[in-house]
Amino acid sequence: MVSMGFAVPDDFERMWADLAPVGRSASSGGYFRQPFASAERELAAWFAEQCAARDLAVESDAFGNVVAWWRPEGSASPGVLTGSHLDSVLDGGAYDGPLGVVSALAAVDELRSRGFVPGRPVGVGVFVEEEGSRFGLACLGSRLATGAISWDQARELRDRDGVALGDVAEGGGPGLLDDVGVFVELHVEQGRDLVDRAAAVGVASGIWPHGRYRFDIAGEANHAGSTRMEDRRDPMLTYAMTALAANKQARVLGERATFGRVEVEPNGTNAVPSRVTAWLDARASTEEGLAELVETVSRQAAERAERDGTAVEVTAESVSDAVLFDPDLAARLAADHAGGDWPVLPTAAGHDAGVLSAAGIPTAMLFVRNPTGVSHSPAEHAEVPDCLAGVHALAETLERLAR
Amino acid sequence: MVSMGFAVPDDFERMWADLAPVGRSASSGGYFRQPFASAERELAAWFAEQCAARDLAVESDAFGNVVAWWRPEGSASPGVLTGSHLDSVLDGGAYDGPLGVVSALAAVDELRSRGFVPGRPVGVGVFVEEEGSRFGLACLGSRLATGAISWDQARELRDRDGVALGDVAEGGGPGLLDDVGVFVELHVEQGRDLVDRAAAVGVASGIWPHGRYRFDIAGEANHAGSTRMEDRRDPMLTYAMTALAANKQARVLGERATFGRVEVEPNGTNAVPSRVTAWLDARASTEEGLAELVETVSRQAAERAERDGTAVEVTAESVSDAVLFDPDLAARLAADHAGGDWPVLPTAAGHDAGVLSAAGIPTAMLFVRNPTGVSHSPAEHAEVPDCLAGVHALAETLERLAR
Repeated sequence: MVSMGFAVPDDFERMWADLAPVGRSASSGGYFRQPFASAERELAAWFAEQCAARDLAVESDAFGNVVAWWRPEGSASPGVLTGSHLDSVLDGGAYDGPLGVVSALAAVDELRSRGFVPGRPVGVGVFVEEEGSRFGLACLGSRLATGAISWDQARELRDRDGVALGDVAEGGGPGLLDDVGVFVELHVEQGRDLVDRAAAVGVASGIWPHGRYRFDIAGEANHAGSTRMEDRRDPMLTYAMTALAANKQARVLGERATFGRVEVEPNGTNAVPSRVTAWLDARASTEEGLAELVETVSRQAAERAERDGTAVEVTAESVSDAVLFDPDLAARLAADHAGGDWPVLPTAAGHDAGVLSAAGIPTAMLFVRNPTGVSHSPAEHAEVPDCLAGVHALAETLERLAR
Repeated sequence: MVSMGFAVPDDFERMWADLAPVGRSASSGGYFRQPFASAERELAAWFAEQCAARDLAVESDAFGNVVAWWRPEGSASPGVLTGSHLDSVLDGGAYDGPLGVVSALAAVDELRSRGFVPGRPVGVGVFVEEEGSRFGLACLGSRLATGAISWDQARELRDRDGVALGDVAEGGGPGLLDDVGVFVELHVEQGRDLVDRAAAVGVASGIWPHGRYRFDIAGEANHAGSTRMEDRRDPMLTYAMTALAANKQARVLGERATFGRVEVEPNGTNAVPSRVTAWLDARASTEEGLAELVETVSRQAAERAERDGTAVEVTAESVSDAVLFDPDLAARLAADHAGGDWPVLPTAAGHDAGVLSAAGIPTAMLFVRNPTGVSHSPAEHAEVPDCLAGVHALAETLERLAR
């Protein structure tokens, strides 16, 4: 357990209350904070105000990624970056992203309140479109900032309404992170490991390799009443079998496979569809395992398509290799705390931290306990004492790294 | 075969060319003519012009259903109604609906061109929202006009954007059809029976009972990466199994079951869905068969839901009983033609003719050959000579009925 005892819990709770109503659906209680749309822009403006109130030096890139530096006179490069993101999945929870940003600001407040002066600059960062909920590519902001994707590639990405990224964002590319020597992202846990270990805070060891794969299944539109079953080429059947096959395969292997998004054309009750497009989210503990999982599901889809008279095309929209966070750094951060060592655990969820790590920046993550383990859902939750323990843990971590 | 030899094929082709561009998608070649939206309203205005050019007396109801009467002096009630609808399914074909309207106008032209003066009024009707593609209830216009549904019930129907019917239509109810003694609807065939029989035109014997059933499947949203497969309550799996079960059941029994429309919440790639809503279109040759089909699919959905930890609710949004068109009328219309009798055949597709028949109006349908049998699709087609044979067959039919 993390020891308590800093003076600024009110500060955390005030910031948390600021964010609570922004982009919240009254019907589901979930959040809709898609990038470059009103709720997320409101949060970005709120963040700018918070940075100004703290006299942080705000730097941003053309994409809207921001790093706000606490750079005391005499502090020496490179800096220590923390932070997370403010966007959400569609109908997501309050904690995924914003907890890391609010905790970063509160950790700076804690360090200042006890008179700590860092020897290295401390930055609070916000990355845009971490979830990929609008343009389909997760960690888009950090990918642009690290050069993992170029603006020429990214600008062509389109949202569901056909709007190109190039029409809502001005550009993007490396530069913003040039002064970053280490990155620590605090995040709500998306699982129940910390519950099982009775710990409020943990340290990440790595991220499973994962990817998004688009299945385009083409059939033939026809009348749902008068077309005999044997005369159909119905892509919905191919899709349905593929979704079941993916689930079964992942279940057997202890991996993850999800079809959470489907689009049907023309999507009319009395018409056999002409086309079903569905997205597979797949994750496995090894890169070989991931490749085999996707290959198996694709093969089963193709076999069923032959039977249905349909055609399947599988496109990898994004694939993230396995991330192993700096093991020495993780061990150093986890050890020697008043309440004992923090547990070190892997995750199957992608994060900007994974992208920065892949770009060669020494990186660590702190997780805060989630009592139900539920995430990407209005039910996502963390108790206030655990959140405050997270703030304190982050402050301790920044202190160690920026001393 | 139907003998040719009337003077107005140009007239038909001109009208057909008028309609060709309205509501057509450049990418798919299909039609988007949803009720109370621009393309369909344009067609309604076009129809009014055509009626004015022919000196037909236009009557309409508050819903927008129209009957344009050719009522020569001395003609005696009740009248003979023909016509069809101008709306389409989403991304539908050119023929389903408009062929019956254009053929009706052309048949009036043919009768007039050869000097026929009807003893009974002849009406050309257009019913609104036959497809139910916007408000979910097929044959909505004819149901209102016959009193099969009341305006108080109908006004609460909502489209996909949540717009209530009461906000786009002014009202609806019986009255318009008071002077109708018999109804004949010409329609493109939605199947290949006429191809197999080498006939350009046929007569309908009846319509299979059919219905639309909404499956609401509730699960729990969660993170697609970090949630173990065994901890999920994923409604997509319940849906997928239900779609396959429906197909299998209908295939075995020679009936029809289609899931052509699906809506997923939140429909994000990296979230297990919280809810899947899907619509079953089911049709069978008997009412008992239809009930059993829907019951079996619902039971299989419920069984799978138990396994998935989800909950399924099935709601019948509309159910149409079997329609047996007036057998004497069908036999009379089919017999004694120059090219031999027209074939008499059933259909599994619903039509306004079924609603009028159920309301006690003696009703018949003529079908025009469809070379591929494909309908509710951009590929729907009929050859011009077959369309002209249909016009001629309709003119002959009107002549017999209105003499």
